[in-house]
Amino acid sequence: MKLIIGNKNYSSWSLRPWLLMTAHNVPFEEVCIPLYTPQTKARIRDYHEAGKVPVLLDGHTRVWDSLAICEYISERYLDNRGWPDDPLLRAEARACSCEMHSGFFELRERMPMNCRAQDRLVDRDPALDEEIARIDSMWCGLRARFESQGPWLFGQFSIVDCMYAPVAVRFNTYQVALSESAQAYQNTVLGHPAVQDWMAQALQESAVIVDAEVGQ
Amino acid sequence: MKLIIGNKNYSSWSLRPWLLMTAHNVPFEEVCIPLYTPQTKARIRDYHEAGKVPVLLDGHTRVWDSLAICEYISERYLDNRGWPDDPLLRAEARACSCEMHSGFFELRERMPMNCRAQDRLVDRDPALDEEIARIDSMWCGLRARFESQGPWLFGQFSIVDCMYAPVAVRFNTYQVALSESAQAYQNTVLGHPAVQDWMAQALQESAVIVDAEVGQ
Ligand SMILES: N[C@@H](CCC(=O)N[C@@H](CS)C(=O)NCC(=O)O)C(=O)O
Ligand SMILES: N[C@@H](CCC(=O)N[C@@H](CS)C(=O)NCC(=O)O)C(=O)O
Repeated sequence: MKLIIGNKNYSSWSLRPWLLMTAHNVPFEEVCIPLYTPQTKARIRDYHEAGKVPVLLDGHTRVWDSLAICEYISERYLDNRGWPDDPLLRAEARACSCEMHSGFFELRERMPMNCRAQDRLVDRDPALDEEIARIDSMWCGLRARFESQGPWLFGQFSIVDCMYAPVAVRFNTYQVALSESAQAYQNTVLGHPAVQDWMAQALQESAVIVDAEVGQ
Repeated sequence: MKLIIGNKNYSSWSLRPWLLMTAHNVPFEEVCIPLYTPQTKARIRDYHEAGKVPVLLDGHTRVWDSLAICEYISERYLDNRGWPDDPLLRAEARACSCEMHSGFFELRERMPMNCRAQDRLVDRDPALDEEIARIDSMWCGLRARFESQGPWLFGQFSIVDCMYAPVAVRFNTYQVALSESAQAYQNTVLGHPAVQDWMAQALQESAVIVDAEVGQ
């Protein structure tokens, strides 16, 4: 398989399926296309007409969205271990994942993932604060329920942790204060060896996307 | 089960799981909460803290996102018939669905679903045109491949058709010209008895959301 991704420093959507596959030792080759250059769209469109990364190539199959890739990997390579085994918990984990996939626009706009941005602060306002509070509350609520089963949102590592991994990175680089158990979860994410590898590789990139350099 | 939805006239995300459940005769009761009133957030939060519709209540389970609800219904009530049976086609159908779930921002912003808006036109520009062209091309490509298997995107009716149903409504009300086979698909969607029921009920609502009244 080949996974087409963007800059490791900036491409939050790319990190999600990359983390799932890397954490589970699913073998793949990665192809990195720097984002927002004059060649970017055409290069991504060589792989898929939708023109966004990530894209997964598996034989003749193309899967061109982060969440759809995670579903596919879970079904085809992980014997469904990508999600919690219990059907009701799986529904809940999917809802948390979909909430991220389709929302948190303030966070995404105003705190873009930028692995190299250390010790920055961005201006806060009520709309952004509300999203941060929702995520903090989601993380704390899940940790309280699944604490005895492991350190991840639903106990064991699952796709929902991949969906929120870039959020943990943002809360770290932009120094967002969290409740204690949300903070502990954030540390769990940042301590995952695959996340550390991704971050280390991001630090070695030099391309700069001006619009994603925010805060001071 | 209870499905919490917004105004039928405007709530595109509500239509998606409602259509899946209605088309498959999955029994549920609907609770309609008018959107963007001073009471809306609190009323939705009585059902789920994320504060968005749709929300599905099934016993103690809460599923609070359109796509996650569709996945849940398919797994739990449809013996997985919500998606194409072939795993590679299922991956592709999920990618199409996720592309809608997470994107097409120009279309969503500038052509909000408004069932009662008849014969309107909105200003077009290259960014909006590009999204429309992408959807037209997706629909045509899928119809060409699956024509012999039925009139829906992957032949048989599936979740991906629910995800694009509000787009068919928009292309109709805002009079967007499409390629021939995309147009034929649009007619298929608009002719589905459940879509017709939804539209008829939308016409009977009287609440107006000013921001969603666009075009002339
Ligand atoms: N919903 C998509 C979002 C993908 C997305 O927006 N990717 C961005 C980079 S993180 C991209 O490809 N941008 C390049 C462009 O739009 O030209 C997913 O979850 O995969
Ligand atoms: N990703 C969500 C989006 C839900 C959404 O944005 N719903 C809108 C109505 S269509 C809403 O609840 N708006 C009310 C609000 O934000 O206060 C889904 O697919 O269910």
